[in-house]
Amino acid sequence: MRRGLSGAGLGPLKDEIQLIELAGRNGFETVDIDARGLAARFGAEQARELLASHGVEIGSVGLPVEWRTTEEAFLEGMKTLAEHAAAARALGCTRCCTYILPSTDLPAAHFMALATRRLRTCAQVLGAYGIRLGLEFVGPHHLRTRWANPFIWTMEETLDWIGAIGESNVGLLLDSYHWYTNGLNVSDIEALRPEQIVHVHLNDAPDVPVEEALDNGRLYPGEGVIDLAGFLKALRTIGYDGPVCQEILSQEPPRGTPEELARHSGHCFDKVFAAAGL
Amino acid sequence: MRRGLSGAGLGPLKDEIQLIELAGRNGFETVDIDARGLAARFGAEQARELLASHGVEIGSVGLPVEWRTTEEAFLEGMKTLAEHAAAARALGCTRCCTYILPSTDLPAAHFMALATRRLRTCAQVLGAYGIRLGLEFVGPHHLRTRWANPFIWTMEETLDWIGAIGESNVGLLLDSYHWYTNGLNVSDIEALRPEQIVHVHLNDAPDVPVEEALDNGRLYPGEGVIDLAGFLKALRTIGYDGPVCQEILSQEPPRGTPEELARHSGHCFDKVFAAAGL
Amino acid sequence: MRRGLSGAGLGPLKDEIQLIELAGRNGFETVDIDARGLAARFGAEQARELLASHGVEIGSVGLPVEWRTTEEAFLEGMKTLAEHAAAARALGCTRCCTYILPSTDLPAAHFMALATRRLRTCAQVLGAYGIRLGLEFVGPHHLRTRWANPFIWTMEETLDWIGAIGESNVGLLLDSYHWYTNGLNVSDIEALRPEQIVHVHLNDAPDVPVEEALDNGRLYPGEGVIDLAGFLKALRTIGYDGPVCQEILSQEPPRGTPEELARHSGHCFDKVFAAAGL
Amino acid sequence: MRRGLSGAGLGPLKDEIQLIELAGRNGFETVDIDARGLAARFGAEQARELLASHGVEIGSVGLPVEWRTTEEAFLEGMKTLAEHAAAARALGCTRCCTYILPSTDLPAAHFMALATRRLRTCAQVLGAYGIRLGLEFVGPHHLRTRWANPFIWTMEETLDWIGAIGESNVGLLLDSYHWYTNGLNVSDIEALRPEQIVHVHLNDAPDVPVEEALDNGRLYPGEGVIDLAGFLKALRTIGYDGPVCQEILSQEPPRGTPEELARHSGHCFDKVFAAAGL
Repeated sequence: MRRGLSGAGLGPLKDEIQLIELAGRNGFETVDIDARGLAARFGAEQARELLASHGVEIGSVGLPVEWRTTEEAFLEGMKTLAEHAAAARALGCTRCCTYILPSTDLPAAHFMALATRRLRTCAQVLGAYGIRLGLEFVGPHHLRTRWANPFIWTMEETLDWIGAIGESNVGLLLDSYHWYTNGLNVSDIEALRPEQIVHVHLNDAPDVPVEEALDNGRLYPGEGVIDLAGFLKALRTIGYDGPVCQEILSQEPPRGTPEELARHSGHCFDKVFAAAGL
Repeated sequence: MRRGLSGAGLGPLKDEIQLIELAGRNGFETVDIDARGLAARFGAEQARELLASHGVEIGSVGLPVEWRTTEEAFLEGMKTLAEHAAAARALGCTRCCTYILPSTDLPAAHFMALATRRLRTCAQVLGAYGIRLGLEFVGPHHLRTRWANPFIWTMEETLDWIGAIGESNVGLLLDSYHWYTNGLNVSDIEALRPEQIVHVHLNDAPDVPVEEALDNGRLYPGEGVIDLAGFLKALRTIGYDGPVCQEILSQEPPRGTPEELARHSGHCFDKVFAAAGL
Repeated sequence: MRRGLSGAGLGPLKDEIQLIELAGRNGFETVDIDARGLAARFGAEQARELLASHGVEIGSVGLPVEWRTTEEAFLEGMKTLAEHAAAARALGCTRCCTYILPSTDLPAAHFMALATRRLRTCAQVLGAYGIRLGLEFVGPHHLRTRWANPFIWTMEETLDWIGAIGESNVGLLLDSYHWYTNGLNVSDIEALRPEQIVHVHLNDAPDVPVEEALDNGRLYPGEGVIDLAGFLKALRTIGYDGPVCQEILSQEPPRGTPEELARHSGHCFDKVFAAAGL
Repeated sequence: MRRGLSGAGLGPLKDEIQLIELAGRNGFETVDIDARGLAARFGAEQARELLASHGVEIGSVGLPVEWRTTEEAFLEGMKTLAEHAAAARALGCTRCCTYILPSTDLPAAHFMALATRRLRTCAQVLGAYGIRLGLEFVGPHHLRTRWANPFIWTMEETLDWIGAIGESNVGLLLDSYHWYTNGLNVSDIEALRPEQIVHVHLNDAPDVPVEEALDNGRLYPGEGVIDLAGFLKALRTIGYDGPVCQEILSQEPPRGTPEELARHSGHCFDKVFAAAGL
């Protein structure tokens, strides 16, 4: 497994270069970043050199297609998806991720049908470029009733959805926060094959009843109550060897400079990786 | 378009032969029947001769796979689907249909994901044998709240679902009763391409507020308030040339012998076909 | 059926506007043109007005993706496919076509596997925008041995390939020249369903043995030996109502101004359409 | 990795029970066997007990569908595929395999199109039951020209074909004999992800020029010239943990009783597994 850094939890960053530098200086091996933006700014060759010079690779890019609203928005986003995929490929990245909101104002079954078709099309384009699509189920309870109709939020439902999408390059984004807020345990991870997991997020939760853990109330790994050692051990047991990326979503911007926060996050990773024997 | 007869609306029949005879004697050109049962009873060769001797073909067979409940039930049904498809093919039938209940006790989005995968698998097997799968949306309002969660019941949702299933041999079963109870009109049919329609049901509705029209409260064509002339004309306009089959679902068994009821149904078809200029 | 004009057979044209003007002035209702180029030059709104002001629509755009050579070339082309599809959609065009060379220097089976995957991906992107992909089988005998290994050139093989590609928006581009050089007849067209045909080319062949008819030795409709009346009648019989576009490929540029040649082509269309009773 | 026994290389066996007994007595953990036959003879429950009582599981079943000849033969085989898959599932088997002949009397490109569609349909049915389909590329040089047209025989071509089939449950059957006769080496295996391999065969080749190694001239593991230690080490390196099954095809039936031959094979497995440090 490779430690990954994203901008979430570092406060406002100047640009992508800063994220790459912070990752390299603090023991992270991957960054979650906009590959196309990086390639556009520097050219693929120089972008690869920039990453290499800091000893990091791109862990995952975000899915740039709006699949949750109108067909027009979807088709507008689709226009550039192949370029995003080509840029990710050119920079050595093989992962693209999106998250699933647990409820929706649209009729749930109809939205599921539309979203299945749209994400399949996204996966098909990504697959042409050797990129996998990771779907992140989202566990916090307050989001299940945030919009009018329940959608899906469990790992099992998400795996079933992946079956419905039916493309071989689609898998899970497994976030420790959603694993925890779904009440899952180590054996649920051990039941997975490693190729079912596209990407992993590592976050911790405050010591509140699990039903009250807010999506944007996350802590750095090791500062909360989630069994992250068990989480990481289970991933190692099944043979997952991809990135494990922090994504500290919080209501208030975190206190401290990006440099301080990245260093802190690196120490937090040290702690939980050590606890997992990694 | 070819007039089609099913057992629904004829009272209890002795067997399939009776349905075939009644169809032939009363101006119907197709029957909706169990092809595999017929082939098993008579052998394919004789079954074809039986149909031909009465001047009828098989319009559609029912989907023999339970896709609405457990995975076990689904896989059990899948075991014989290819044999059903092979029998249909051997008897010259190219249509297989199933209906969609407008509500479900399962979580709607998750059920949609499961059902999408299951119906896709059904379509793939049917497609190998040159059989198309027709999905019947079901309009009566009382069924939309019959089970805990709304599913889908409109033509547009069903077309979107067909897109999500993603197999080229899946289309609509268009039933005049569901067209009516969905508040659709002639232009909704005219917006379709003929290959989007796999099969058609022809039924009429009593003169009650549309919200109160019950799924099993159907009338023979021409005896109710549905604009069946407009319905048939629109189908002809777009070039649909498949079967148009009666399916008179009622709470009480209809009064009269099967012979009387089939003759009556034939007259009803004469009337609405004439009104449509067919 | 709508008469279609392409640049092939008109000599060198100044630009797309000239093609649109020539089409409108000579009784053609569609043009085969680069939709994305047109939209880029004028904007979608004005491009639509330009087309409408001459009474023409876009019949088909060419597939801008190189699927016959390297994976790199394929992925490079894929980067802009969605934009081409979006432009076609914005200008009201629903067809995109490519042709199949009857022989290849690559190992035939392996190339078929690669090409199947690549064209499927193209079809998936096009399908998202409501665009169908037409595959043109190419009949002239000299091309069957032009490269080292025979590939496919018959209509039946092409239909089987469409089955292997497995996307519902893929069909035939039926060119009268390839129909003729394959020795096909009216009944072969009558065996098709109209939705299997995405696009039609109308060309004639010189009075030489069919084995000697060269791919770039085509004549204007009605000036050669192909039974174009039968060809068009069969298309009407099955209900094909899309464009029928000239594509006069010749070794030497045709003699005459584009205006003269387009007028001539219009007269040729008049003749064969009249002979077909259209 | 689990050692697997098949009937190939044991001489004539009385029945499946004998194969299971021989496997259990000689250190094999899986057998390649007809699951449906076993379930039909004993019932699923008792068949499971029989296997368990000898400490073996079913490694793989053969694909019971003829995909290489006529459409009729294909559809005939498809009729029972789901039952085979259901029986395999009931007995805990998750693999089904078929081999690819390197040449064909059919036109190669057309046959590739047909076979792609047919194997996709097979994979779809198998996938419904949680069964993966393994495709075995076949390397011996004499078979490449045995029939009129070259088809495919390399690992790379087979991986490309798997991409064209496009179902997530299709992968390689990797046979050491075909690995050797294709001139592949350890790094070719190390370039694979473990989930790309559905099943493995372990055989050895005589000390003849590789071009002369006959498909039915195989030796027990360790008795020939193939670097089986390297082969097994590479499989371990990438994390393959499925069955590794003998399949000793020979022109003459092997000399010795099944008991003697199975014991010999077990010793051969001991030797090469030890050499690989397994």
